[in-house]
Amino acid sequence: MSEPYKIGIAGLGTVGASTLQLLVNENARISARAGRPLKVTGINARDRAKDRGVDLAAFEWFDDPVALAKSNGIDMFIEMIGGSEGVAKASVEAALASGKAVVTANKALVAHHGAALSKLAEETKGASLHFEPAVAGGIPAIKALREGMAGNGVTRVSGILNGTCNYILTEMETTGAAFAGVLADAQALGYAETDPTADVGGFDAAHKLAIMAAIAFGQQINFDAVQIDGIENVSAEDIEAAADMGYRIRLLGVAERTDAGVSQRVRPCLTPTNSPLGKITGVTNAVLIEGDAIGAAMLTGPGAGGYATASAVLADVVDAARGNCPPTFGLPVGDLATASTDPAADEGAFYMRVSLKDQPGTLAAVAAALGKEGISIHRMRQHDHTGDMAPVTIVTHSTTLAAVDRAKANIASLDVSLAPPVSMRIVGV
Amino acid sequence: MSEPYKIGIAGLGTVGASTLQLLVNENARISARAGRPLKVTGINARDRAKDRGVDLAAFEWFDDPVALAKSNGIDMFIEMIGGSEGVAKASVEAALASGKAVVTANKALVAHHGAALSKLAEETKGASLHFEPAVAGGIPAIKALREGMAGNGVTRVSGILNGTCNYILTEMETTGAAFAGVLADAQALGYAETDPTADVGGFDAAHKLAIMAAIAFGQQINFDAVQIDGIENVSAEDIEAAADMGYRIRLLGVAERTDAGVSQRVRPCLTPTNSPLGKITGVTNAVLIEGDAIGAAMLTGPGAGGYATASAVLADVVDAARGNCPPTFGLPVGDLATASTDPAADEGAFYMRVSLKDQPGTLAAVAAALGKEGISIHRMRQHDHTGDMAPVTIVTHSTTLAAVDRAKANIASLDVSLAPPVSMRIVGV
Repeated sequence: MSEPYKIGIAGLGTVGASTLQLLVNENARISARAGRPLKVTGINARDRAKDRGVDLAAFEWFDDPVALAKSNGIDMFIEMIGGSEGVAKASVEAALASGKAVVTANKALVAHHGAALSKLAEETKGASLHFEPAVAGGIPAIKALREGMAGNGVTRVSGILNGTCNYILTEMETTGAAFAGVLADAQALGYAETDPTADVGGFDAAHKLAIMAAIAFGQQINFDAVQIDGIENVSAEDIEAAADMGYRIRLLGVAERTDAGVSQRVRPCLTPTNSPLGKITGVTNAVLIEGDAIGAAMLTGPGAGGYATASAVLADVVDAARGNCPPTFGLPVGDLATASTDPAADEGAFYMRVSLKDQPGTLAAVAAALGKEGISIHRMRQHDHTGDMAPVTIVTHSTTLAAVDRAKANIASLDVSLAPPVSMRIVGV
Repeated sequence: MSEPYKIGIAGLGTVGASTLQLLVNENARISARAGRPLKVTGINARDRAKDRGVDLAAFEWFDDPVALAKSNGIDMFIEMIGGSEGVAKASVEAALASGKAVVTANKALVAHHGAALSKLAEETKGASLHFEPAVAGGIPAIKALREGMAGNGVTRVSGILNGTCNYILTEMETTGAAFAGVLADAQALGYAETDPTADVGGFDAAHKLAIMAAIAFGQQINFDAVQIDGIENVSAEDIEAAADMGYRIRLLGVAERTDAGVSQRVRPCLTPTNSPLGKITGVTNAVLIEGDAIGAAMLTGPGAGGYATASAVLADVVDAARGNCPPTFGLPVGDLATASTDPAADEGAFYMRVSLKDQPGTLAAVAAALGKEGISIHRMRQHDHTGDMAPVTIVTHSTTLAAVDRAKANIASLDVSLAPPVSMRIVGV
């Protein structure tokens, strides 16, 4: 076997500690797969005293992750610090600038600075940037997209990219409970953070989608181009109405090639209960790749968790140790297309729910408002009255978001409208 | 860009022609992913005149695939001839021996001769062997297992590896029809071959399972160690009885690490309707990978079809053109463990169906036969009588195949037994 491949790990939280444990406890097996001895030499974390299940005395301790990143004692720098700025960014830059391979699970860092970091990796001899653990936890989504689908013109990449949201939506579905209560339970169980914004606001999923879109469509990563809507306003009523019609509500990340360019959207959508993404329940993540050769393939698995995410870290470690370092986003940075920023028309079927006074003529007024925008109705259902309110759910034929938004504004202005109309895109019909 | 990567394709059937079309029509896009111009230079097929959707005049024609394999005009040889022996084997050997990269979709060839071929690839400068298209069509199962799961100690790899069988079983399920009629329909629709043995007999799935088991468990490929049972004897009665209890019957390939070594089995199993593999319907393939770090991840997609399988061919082409050639089975041939040949105990729950005379005491006799072998009953259901026959279905608690087989023999010898008892393993409970 060749020279040891020397590894520094910065950040020993759940994923960092799990990675360290596997590299120590399963060293012979993983080294065999890497074709050379893997050796953790340096570590960094905030708290030196905390038990990580491994004796830390065997490694050189660094108080400063940037010093570890620059150290001559490592070939690879594993960044598990987190956050798109600060020492995470500084240490990854330092590692790349000094010609090291970098593995990061930091989706915010890659989503915001992936272009500059991959350029730095390309321009620096010996440097390479790997981020399999940043997208969909243990699922080898990056490898599947960048290498497994290399022969495809990808038309769409979509997925359930945030386990916390999918857990909350699944719980709402099975219990009928409202968002706030389910979120509180998820926080108590440790499935949601104390500040849940990154998850339930859709930002975490958007980071992952931006990374996958760049690879899938060979374009510069552009997080700002992702249109983001979270699950905070998904109501128990909408989940029930969707179920009545054979749909589930899922926070979907969808990046697709349209006539206007590539659109990137994270938002709650209705998807058929028996569709590939509709079948995904609980904390599981799923990535659906559609291309002109493959048709469609899907990967499902754990989107979070220490050992599961460490599995993705180690895939990158083995790749880098073997010298399998294709361009970060599948193409050299200079060959990546400019990312589309114009929102596409967003054409498709939509779900709408309107809350109307229960009196003659109201349905006709709604139908007229839809007709005025050229929206044709596929299904319409009036539900049990609540007091003098008659909720009506509508599934449209293919139309545009703009038309739906105008129709909603018109309906909201009707005398008989009791609450702002709700709408969601239907995906996967 | 660097020098063109010159490709020869032998065999222009559905997959070969689809590969050729994509390499010609999407050349710029795929070459960009490969980092160098991909150029088909030589071709071989049985029939020179047939229309393949591409003008063949641009390529050097070879009547003999071995001559193409040896030709100095190619860097890579794509073998799409088929069959484990004859010119397919001879041409792959010739290509490897002359230092070329080889991509093959030939699962029989790899299952039977993968050990020798990968050794030849290792010993010959410049040679490498790639077979993503040989397993599960377009699904990047080999890449996921060999690279994406490189950090895992794999405990089990299982899957629905034959779309024809899954189509037939799904059709039997939804129509209630018997095997023979559904097979005839599938043949008429082109979903099953005129000689369906390779598919319905389980051999095709077994080829794929043997390849995945070698990679998953770092052992020499050993097709002879796979225990194979096809779907020919799956009855409409068993499918209905399974459905009554919340199961589907699926032809599962399962390779798992047990105390006795690695067991490899292809056979019809019962799996819960809402389990990952139980949800797979129709011609779709699925590969479920379980490991000590990842937990479980699943890949689903098209297991056959010209363009879908060409997608996998092109993934290998891009890998090889980039020089990403890890050891064929994940480890150097010399480091692969000897494959287990002792069948493991096959412990788990089993489904049994016994056909008994409808008279007092028969159930007690069956219960006694099971009790004698230490088989404990989880569920037992007596179905509607047919004439004087009372079918009884049983789900056991965990036991062994040997105990079940002995109990079946005892039950068959009872006076009240009207037909040989049936049993199937339950997987994924």
